[in-house]
Amino acid sequence: MIGNFFVEAEDGNARAGVLNTAHGSINTPAFMPVATQGSVKALDFTDLRSMGAHVVLSNTYHLMLRPGIDLIRDLGGLHKFIDWDGPILTDSGGFQTFSLGKLTKVTDAGVQFRSHIDGSLRFLSPEIVLEYQSSLGVDIAMVLDQCSEYGLGHAEIMEAMRRTHDWALRSRETHNNPDQLIFGIVQGGWDIALRKQSAEFLKSLDFDGYAIGGMSVGEPKSVMYETVSLMGQELPYSKPRYLMGVGSPEDLVESVYMGVDLFDCVLPTRVARNGSLMTLKGRINILNKQYSKSTGPIEESCDCYTCERFSVAYLHHLFKARELSAYRLASIHNLRFILKLMEDMRLAIKSNTLGLYREEFARNYHPTDESIRLVQKQKWSKRRQESS
Amino acid sequence: MIGNFFVEAEDGNARAGVLNTAHGSINTPAFMPVATQGSVKALDFTDLRSMGAHVVLSNTYHLMLRPGIDLIRDLGGLHKFIDWDGPILTDSGGFQTFSLGKLTKVTDAGVQFRSHIDGSLRFLSPEIVLEYQSSLGVDIAMVLDQCSEYGLGHAEIMEAMRRTHDWALRSRETHNNPDQLIFGIVQGGWDIALRKQSAEFLKSLDFDGYAIGGMSVGEPKSVMYETVSLMGQELPYSKPRYLMGVGSPEDLVESVYMGVDLFDCVLPTRVARNGSLMTLKGRINILNKQYSKSTGPIEESCDCYTCERFSVAYLHHLFKARELSAYRLASIHNLRFILKLMEDMRLAIKSNTLGLYREEFARNYHPTDESIRLVQKQKWSKRRQESS
Repeated sequence: MIGNFFVEAEDGNARAGVLNTAHGSINTPAFMPVATQGSVKALDFTDLRSMGAHVVLSNTYHLMLRPGIDLIRDLGGLHKFIDWDGPILTDSGGFQTFSLGKLTKVTDAGVQFRSHIDGSLRFLSPEIVLEYQSSLGVDIAMVLDQCSEYGLGHAEIMEAMRRTHDWALRSRETHNNPDQLIFGIVQGGWDIALRKQSAEFLKSLDFDGYAIGGMSVGEPKSVMYETVSLMGQELPYSKPRYLMGVGSPEDLVESVYMGVDLFDCVLPTRVARNGSLMTLKGRINILNKQYSKSTGPIEESCDCYTCERFSVAYLHHLFKARELSAYRLASIHNLRFILKLMEDMRLAIKSNTLGLYREEFARNYHPTDESIRLVQKQKWSKRRQESS
Repeated sequence: MIGNFFVEAEDGNARAGVLNTAHGSINTPAFMPVATQGSVKALDFTDLRSMGAHVVLSNTYHLMLRPGIDLIRDLGGLHKFIDWDGPILTDSGGFQTFSLGKLTKVTDAGVQFRSHIDGSLRFLSPEIVLEYQSSLGVDIAMVLDQCSEYGLGHAEIMEAMRRTHDWALRSRETHNNPDQLIFGIVQGGWDIALRKQSAEFLKSLDFDGYAIGGMSVGEPKSVMYETVSLMGQELPYSKPRYLMGVGSPEDLVESVYMGVDLFDCVLPTRVARNGSLMTLKGRINILNKQYSKSTGPIEESCDCYTCERFSVAYLHHLFKARELSAYRLASIHNLRFILKLMEDMRLAIKSNTLGLYREEFARNYHPTDESIRLVQKQKWSKRRQESS
């Protein structure tokens, strides 16, 4: 039945599950490649199918501005428009609108903002984002929420959380699409007590799933891990847990270990386009001269399209020569690397060996500071707006 | 046998043939997609295979500068490096070096020039380009030639032709690779008498095929058609004829009709990346607002990957949103459009109906002045250097 989430196996706090949607089931833990504007950058959905993706994420905010919700609805819905017949989750757009800073006005009614494309005045409310997500015909809708940037004071976080809860209630009351799941979003910033309070309130609304929002927004890793760990305890066992915007290999392993089921992140494809390719030892910069003569694949154990066909030397050449194909081949590799990581963790959970898997991963994988620097270099607000 | 060219059918001056190479046979008339730097821009060779390409072109000049001939040889040759096991033809690099203008010094010995990448001093001779093409392991090598830009005086054209003939002779004497065909290149600029003289001289050297060089370099279409028509008469019947750098649909139809067998051109992929997509009625600009709601494919009769999956509205959206996938999907369409044009002409020749095909094509297809403008807008020399 749509919405049912079965936990097939557990290992400590980690779970291997199946989430049923109107466009098929999702094996969890699962990573959702990000098709912000209806396209996973540099790829098409045949690539996504080939690499074993089960579900993709798109974005209500971006699609409403371009090409427009009505147009997609009139053309038969988002699945048909983008050529993807599997499950789609859409973010509500709240995260993006807040990024517009002074151009955005948040009231209890909703969010007024100016389009980053043509400057036109637009409005989103909890009710409107659900109407839009129904028009798109997506399988999992996210409620409108208000995110708290790291560093905000207690009062501001409280206010954003109160509003998020108010909106969640209105969303729950509004939602009446039997073909669509609806997920609530826990807020509360860096304040662990507020996070707990937020989780408790949202639980009372009985959503089909629960997202952990406002993570990876500038906070130290320790804050994120503490929050995720708490959520692995507090959120309902029988519902999927979704950590929004997180997707570095090390964070995925830690978060699955703490009980998270769903993830999305632009990191794998964004860094791929910069030539940063994932291996089980860490990320390599394909542009480095040392890779100009390597005849092997990026990662020996990888079964992706790119690794099966092309040498590191050829990829080095494509990046050096700025050939467009480089972006696609690198994105395919990094996404498949992440998807395989999830598949391997699922198997480990089923065989009760996730602890060993996590230890071995941590022993071999050297997280680059690069990812942290990449994130810190960019303004948080800019990241939110682009989101891909 | 390698090098054998069989004319299977003829229709007026047009021929349907088969050219055998060490990496398979090429059905002619054939269009060669251009992989200047070892990649057809935005595509990989699985895409090329899927769309029915038989042969691709790469460029000695670009490959020698990056990643280097020795590196490709050491990694097992160009076929292995780029993941293409079909026939490859490489241009000699002469056309590119002349584009460097004052940085290039041409003597009877060869061409001295500075790399456009690092400014280093390099040298190409007829003998060296053949050695390089043997190291690359390509199936068809082109001789070094000296091209005459449109507008040059008689004496300059004569001098370039004399040198081209001298180099052709040295090339013929040097070439001793039994797995590789070698094509001569007719020069003579816009002077039809010199063109005839050039064809006669090259015929005496008994090359495996004959290219018409120095076309589409700023001359009026009438000059090009007059030259091509003459070559359809003068070049040996039993050898393939290759019109270099020409590839607009209207020029392909006219040139096949006049007896040309092989073509290469970056136009289909270059204009694709600008959103100019080919149909049997002419090219459309996918960015035009009128395409924002079109549910059909780009061209109803097209069997390409893109037309089979995506609406014009989705492609319009991808181009508007500047999604990288747009470049690949558009390039696939335009190349398949051109390849199908060649296949259709081959069938028409075999059924003795090319005249009718040509008439119907001309009745329906409206060549955009855009292509002419595109060419004229760019400096000839710049075009030569980039060449893709």
